[in-house]
Amino acid sequence: MRFGYLGPVGTFSHAALLASPRLAEDAEEVPCSSEREAIVAVQEGRIDAALVPVENAIEGGVNATVDALIHDAPDVVIEGEELLDVSHALIGRPGVELDDVTEVISHPQPLGQCRGSLARMFPGRPLRAVSSTAEAVRIVAESSAPLVAVGHPEAAPLYGVSVIREAIEDAPGNKTRFWWVGRAGTSTTATAASAWKSSIVFGGDGDNEPGWLLNSLAAFADRGINLTRIESRPSREHLGHYVFLIDVAGRAEAEPLTGALGALRGRGASVRVLGSYPVA
Amino acid sequence: MRFGYLGPVGTFSHAALLASPRLAEDAEEVPCSSEREAIVAVQEGRIDAALVPVENAIEGGVNATVDALIHDAPDVVIEGEELLDVSHALIGRPGVELDDVTEVISHPQPLGQCRGSLARMFPGRPLRAVSSTAEAVRIVAESSAPLVAVGHPEAAPLYGVSVIREAIEDAPGNKTRFWWVGRAGTSTTATAASAWKSSIVFGGDGDNEPGWLLNSLAAFADRGINLTRIESRPSREHLGHYVFLIDVAGRAEAEPLTGALGALRGRGASVRVLGSYPVA
Repeated sequence: MRFGYLGPVGTFSHAALLASPRLAEDAEEVPCSSEREAIVAVQEGRIDAALVPVENAIEGGVNATVDALIHDAPDVVIEGEELLDVSHALIGRPGVELDDVTEVISHPQPLGQCRGSLARMFPGRPLRAVSSTAEAVRIVAESSAPLVAVGHPEAAPLYGVSVIREAIEDAPGNKTRFWWVGRAGTSTTATAASAWKSSIVFGGDGDNEPGWLLNSLAAFADRGINLTRIESRPSREHLGHYVFLIDVAGRAEAEPLTGALGALRGRGASVRVLGSYPVA
Repeated sequence: MRFGYLGPVGTFSHAALLASPRLAEDAEEVPCSSEREAIVAVQEGRIDAALVPVENAIEGGVNATVDALIHDAPDVVIEGEELLDVSHALIGRPGVELDDVTEVISHPQPLGQCRGSLARMFPGRPLRAVSSTAEAVRIVAESSAPLVAVGHPEAAPLYGVSVIREAIEDAPGNKTRFWWVGRAGTSTTATAASAWKSSIVFGGDGDNEPGWLLNSLAAFADRGINLTRIESRPSREHLGHYVFLIDVAGRAEAEPLTGALGALRGRGASVRVLGSYPVA
């Protein structure tokens, strides 16, 4: 099996992959250059599955993951989820002085998760967003300029640089949720789980009518189905037109969720089940 | 009056400010270094009001604006909204060749709005996120390296550089919505508008109970109040715990919205009205 992740080695995605019970010993780890690239590689069959970040406790949804699934990967499904404790280190070349730092480099998500503490440590200095935290550490290691990266503390020794400060995120108890994604019909997920969750995207032409969203959600509530997350993303048609991504309890292939999805479709909504998977 | 905006001159926020009917001739324009800095400057009374981006048709919510209002600005209220057509130009020093470009620089929102076209034009090359589009253009103008910026086409002549390509956003009809924010109790917004909108943040301890969100939204739907937008943001307490930002029709000081907010509070939710303002 070929498993993609947001690379290079030393990212939080890589840490989540190494911690996943799904990583069999004969699996090949395939670093990808972005969340979108990992998802498109699954869509095109170049890899069997990928582990991609979807949501963080401080900074919220990972737009690149959600938008790639909605717009660029019609045959990709969610097969499972993983939760990872996330604590960010400030990483630089040995001996770098904070006052000399000219730029802070990381993935956009950690820059958001550490926005407050970076503003205090480096007022007015630029933040550079790159494709991953490990890529940021690599850039810092290869530059002669006084740059620092925000990333996984274990990435520092991999690239020959040092941890300057630990736990610089803006709130304690930080976690990131990841999705295992694969191609529709090729899932290897066990079906013996006790608790299931389904992720669903829906939208419709009626979404500017009073109560449209509420009536759509009622399809689930009327059947006692708990909603654990809702996110709106632009439909990319015009401002104020959205698609809704929801997480609900249960399996799409079983009642009561099957009935709820039928009711939602019966109201004229376009509905796509991104996947049903065991709760992490 | 001192009006803040995401600066320096030449940003889309600056264009929205110049186009706003609220910009009286004796107003002083105050460039701010980030959305958060503009909002905190209002909170601390250093400026009278600020115009900040809140939502884009392609890339969705501006997290920095929403999170600063929720977490860092308890006394700041929304006084109005503005809509701006947004088309992005690729900007560089005269004569720069696309194949030579080593880095693409912009604000994170335009980098997201142009993610697909930038990936096609500059495969594998790094994107650098800076505080604003005009700041990106300024960096490109001052560097001897073959950098390009994504920003407002009118920013190019302001900084002595050229428009290389126009309209590089990933979808047509792109727009950004801005909020006018001021200090509670100092609003100068006219009250003669025919259509009003209110933006409300709510959350609660019961949000993991089945139907909690639906029952909360029913406070509005039961009174025929249309919901035009819903966004969830992390509460920053733990993963899976959210606050909800909704836009609804009407004024918070008038029925039926007053009754809906009372019903929501009666259910134990914490509720904050960010503002009621005329629909743009």
